[in-house]
Amino acid sequence: MDKTITDQLLKFRKATVPDDALAMMRLSLFDWAACGIAGAKEPEFGDFVKMQKRLGTGQSSVLGGGHAPAATAALINGTLSHALDYDDTHFAHIGHPSVAVLPAVIALAEDVGAPLDVAVDAAAIGVESSILTGLWLGRSHYQIGYHQTATAGAFGATMGTARLLGLDKDELRHALGLCASMASGIKAQFGTMGKPLNAGLAARSGVEAALWAQGGMTAAQDGLAGPLGFGATHHGEAAEIKPGKGPWHLLSISHKFHACCHGLHAMLEALGTSELDPDQIASVHIRTHPRWMSVCNIAEPTTGLAAKFSYAQTAAMALLGHATGAISNFTDEITKDPQVVEMRSKIMISEEERLSETQTEISVSLTGGGMRRLRHDLMAPMSFEDRSAKLQKKTADLLGQDRGEMLWKAAQGEDLRALCDQLVMS
Amino acid sequence: MDKTITDQLLKFRKATVPDDALAMMRLSLFDWAACGIAGAKEPEFGDFVKMQKRLGTGQSSVLGGGHAPAATAALINGTLSHALDYDDTHFAHIGHPSVAVLPAVIALAEDVGAPLDVAVDAAAIGVESSILTGLWLGRSHYQIGYHQTATAGAFGATMGTARLLGLDKDELRHALGLCASMASGIKAQFGTMGKPLNAGLAARSGVEAALWAQGGMTAAQDGLAGPLGFGATHHGEAAEIKPGKGPWHLLSISHKFHACCHGLHAMLEALGTSELDPDQIASVHIRTHPRWMSVCNIAEPTTGLAAKFSYAQTAAMALLGHATGAISNFTDEITKDPQVVEMRSKIMISEEERLSETQTEISVSLTGGGMRRLRHDLMAPMSFEDRSAKLQKKTADLLGQDRGEMLWKAAQGEDLRALCDQLVMS
Repeated sequence: MDKTITDQLLKFRKATVPDDALAMMRLSLFDWAACGIAGAKEPEFGDFVKMQKRLGTGQSSVLGGGHAPAATAALINGTLSHALDYDDTHFAHIGHPSVAVLPAVIALAEDVGAPLDVAVDAAAIGVESSILTGLWLGRSHYQIGYHQTATAGAFGATMGTARLLGLDKDELRHALGLCASMASGIKAQFGTMGKPLNAGLAARSGVEAALWAQGGMTAAQDGLAGPLGFGATHHGEAAEIKPGKGPWHLLSISHKFHACCHGLHAMLEALGTSELDPDQIASVHIRTHPRWMSVCNIAEPTTGLAAKFSYAQTAAMALLGHATGAISNFTDEITKDPQVVEMRSKIMISEEERLSETQTEISVSLTGGGMRRLRHDLMAPMSFEDRSAKLQKKTADLLGQDRGEMLWKAAQGEDLRALCDQLVMS
Repeated sequence: MDKTITDQLLKFRKATVPDDALAMMRLSLFDWAACGIAGAKEPEFGDFVKMQKRLGTGQSSVLGGGHAPAATAALINGTLSHALDYDDTHFAHIGHPSVAVLPAVIALAEDVGAPLDVAVDAAAIGVESSILTGLWLGRSHYQIGYHQTATAGAFGATMGTARLLGLDKDELRHALGLCASMASGIKAQFGTMGKPLNAGLAARSGVEAALWAQGGMTAAQDGLAGPLGFGATHHGEAAEIKPGKGPWHLLSISHKFHACCHGLHAMLEALGTSELDPDQIASVHIRTHPRWMSVCNIAEPTTGLAAKFSYAQTAAMALLGHATGAISNFTDEITKDPQVVEMRSKIMISEEERLSETQTEISVSLTGGGMRRLRHDLMAPMSFEDRSAKLQKKTADLLGQDRGEMLWKAAQGEDLRALCDQLVMS
């Protein structure tokens, strides 16, 4: 009989994480913490956080301030760090891999007093497992309406926390089985507070599944892949996966460098390399995949939210030097700024079948005559140094230069406490 | 456009609960508490309970001792009260309706200081909603592998807690939407600690969904029945339902009166009315629905657990006067008792296509010549008085006469505190 994904995850529990995966995980840890610290300022989640913190105190840092039991901290931090939808993505497994795993692993690491490198190792196992589970569940699971970030994410969080606690094979089997009764979250929540909550619930499920299994709770023998299990009930495709073979999937994680719809990112990356003087620009012609025309092509936005779904607006902002990585720049005012409005009028958008969803092509006509051509593909490999620099720029835009540097230092260091001090600082 | 089940539940939130439904709910409250108090003695859940209680203190009573926040108490109490699988059932919606709803409603009622009649009213709305949701999800949802007790149960628990908190229409809509991202639980857990845990998780989801919605958390507009919602993703049939029309569904709840497989209950009910002298019995011929032959027809069980799945064993116990309502009677020893073994040898079991799953027919040949014929159908209406008497007998068998009487008095009274004092008493 073929091995199920559960059998493969059981073996994967002892995998050695390669250095490139650990380094990439550190970058995602830095990025996740920045998104979380910024997300903790969203006032709409304030009552929810207060309510949860009243339930009991503990060892684990809560984004924005205070401490709570690990499960509660995972729930709150998972929710807050997905509040801005600005955290990392993995296109093939269709979800945000870090936002379910890191809140679980970091909260539990603090609780058990693990050093940061142990937490990063556990998170890498968790994130890779989340992607593997997502690939195994496949597109049918996502298309029918499951929020893969939350469903696959819960199993990833469980694998990460299990690694951290050093669960043995039987305990891990029960933990994955328990997770199979908790993993949940539907796409109907998109556009509501329920979407970030899905991530928080996945993180909590990871903490609880591992702790309960360690405490002797039994569950289905193969709750993920077996009969009447998660895959069978949740429209899983049972696609073939091979944990630990070839380059790790987490190396192809995408980070968001702009605080707006993902459909605009290739265009913003292309413009970001142009070093064009705004005064020299006569007109701009942007070509993009047809799918995005109905998603993020608002011609004349009048609110900060609408600006996040507008080629013309974000292109004008980029060309005029307004940081598109800063949430704070997406205001109602900037949509009415005379310079921005003038620049918008010079920009034309058209769809181009030949391009993929991650590609863009731009022609800029210059006032002095001549033309500049720009192009970008989000799938293009990026050097580790470029990625680091871009993430540091994003964080400086999000949190300010000083705070960004402190966070970078903490995320690259060995002291979990120093990192968590950054999380609680409001 | 037709109204969805969500629209109907939104209207149902203000329904007046009829007196017969309230009286039935009181009986189920008594039965649930008895199952919970007995279930709290199951040692395998001890570590789980301890772990949860360490997370924080609160106002809500925990079965077997102590207090916790409402959500935690709901989780623990839901799990413990389903540990023995001895709580009430509703055959049409295929699940245990009280075990998800009552732990949520009682824990929250204590937290907000509601009197017992308000809690019973809220529980009736919750249980009826759970059955309605279960009927709406239908058999395809159950057959594919969802544990309806947990999935429909979470929505029932949410309706009950929302009624208790007096949520307005918008808040209730969000609570049901949040529940749609949390309701979960698969049948792969049957036979493990994951099965009772499913009930506990459903109860907790009910408490959290209502409290979070009250705290301003938003969710999908129609997370239960809308596009990409719970029904669409979880193999729901979307069968037609009519809340509050005709007799309430909760009036057709079944209570278990014997601590063994449900397939044996019709037979044990039939034997219970026979008043046969064991010495007069020459032979017994039991006819039952073919489905049960592979489920609970172990001919010569040698353990207490196997005894729970044996026609011959449980029939012999009943004929010899051993209470089949007492968990404590299902021991390894009683399967080897010489009188029981001799009686077993006089019993023959055969399948009979003509009978339904809830029917049995028995012929007893007497030593002095002649024959007694017995029959029973679990679906036969039972008077309120008979049901009360049988539940009091069950509770006396489970907890002892005195404790059973105290619990009966508390469950029939108006003082929530008095009932909860019974729950915490070990």
